[in-house]
Amino acid sequence: MQRHFDRDIDELKEQILRMGAMVEDAMSRSIRALLERDTDLANEVISHDDEIDRMEVAIDEKTIELIAKMQPAATDLRFVAAVMKITPELERIADLAQDVCERVIELNREPMLRPIVQLPHLAEEAQTMVRQALDAFVRGDAQLARNVIAHDDVVDQLTEDSFRTLLTYMLENPRNIAPAIRLTFIGKYFERMADGATNICEMVVYLVEGKVIKHAGHE
Amino acid sequence: MQRHFDRDIDELKEQILRMGAMVEDAMSRSIRALLERDTDLANEVISHDDEIDRMEVAIDEKTIELIAKMQPAATDLRFVAAVMKITPELERIADLAQDVCERVIELNREPMLRPIVQLPHLAEEAQTMVRQALDAFVRGDAQLARNVIAHDDVVDQLTEDSFRTLLTYMLENPRNIAPAIRLTFIGKYFERMADGATNICEMVVYLVEGKVIKHAGHE
Repeated sequence: MQRHFDRDIDELKEQILRMGAMVEDAMSRSIRALLERDTDLANEVISHDDEIDRMEVAIDEKTIELIAKMQPAATDLRFVAAVMKITPELERIADLAQDVCERVIELNREPMLRPIVQLPHLAEEAQTMVRQALDAFVRGDAQLARNVIAHDDVVDQLTEDSFRTLLTYMLENPRNIAPAIRLTFIGKYFERMADGATNICEMVVYLVEGKVIKHAGHE
Repeated sequence: MQRHFDRDIDELKEQILRMGAMVEDAMSRSIRALLERDTDLANEVISHDDEIDRMEVAIDEKTIELIAKMQPAATDLRFVAAVMKITPELERIADLAQDVCERVIELNREPMLRPIVQLPHLAEEAQTMVRQALDAFVRGDAQLARNVIAHDDVVDQLTEDSFRTLLTYMLENPRNIAPAIRLTFIGKYFERMADGATNICEMVVYLVEGKVIKHAGHE
């Protein structure tokens, strides 16, 4: 019985990793679409989002099936509860990558604004946080999870800095307003992806240590 | 045994309603703080958010305890799964009300921009959606849930309209840029609260009909 459950858990873990890989891929491609002004690539990311959505539904169904069949207790129950919180975070991150791509398509219809140095940096940091959050989940590494959570402040600061730069462009020339607002939104999307990584990491700490650190303050 | 479980379910339902009432209250007060430029009220909403966060953690713990103790099957299991998806949505809506209040505090430090008619309308619509989503959950009313989901398009349109109005103000006078951006964010926050209501309603349909309509397209 326990053996069988272990196999189910492994399968579930693998499914989440596959979903995570797809989400990471959507993020990378949204960043590339932004930096290379690539409308085709942006459209691709948008049309691939369905697959990630289906993945979430499949994982949820499997999780519920597992609870019904196996009636897990203690650690296994924590795992199942964590999975139910992690998949919607991943799905949201993918949605945000899609939002980035929608703004990129709009941006590409207009002349280019000067590059905002903080924005690629911010995007990369957010991506690293998502990757590490998934790593922490697979390895059950609560320390890594805590490091990721602590890193969220860096991303918040980069978002704030890029917004300030964009604001000066808007004040400089009204022509810059529309593209600068789109770029402001893109900054916010990456910030929210990083928040998603933070939420996943909070679940990893819960999974490993049985401790709810959500809302406990991250300082 | 079943009897006891029913009581637990009722208790859980009541806890969610209490959390929902607090979230609705945070929304109302954030709207009032915005319309009446009331910084004190905005600060109050922000400082009350902790309570809602603690509520989420308490409900989650109770839910997991319930799974372990009762090993629910079929309908009860669906209920428990729905609860685990609904509480984070409520918590997110409360966070967004807090975000509104943060922008309100910033806005109140600057001269007032002309009132944007769509914004109070948008806020009200979002609030109605959240209230109805909670009603649909309590009553197990899948039809009401579907109506709320269908209404999300109205909110999206209002957000778009208020953004367009704000954009014209920005183009008119660079002084308007900073406050108009804050108001744009506020519009987005309400749009996301409405999205949260939509997500809750999807869970209600799942709860009542056992059907996953998430990501199925809302048209």
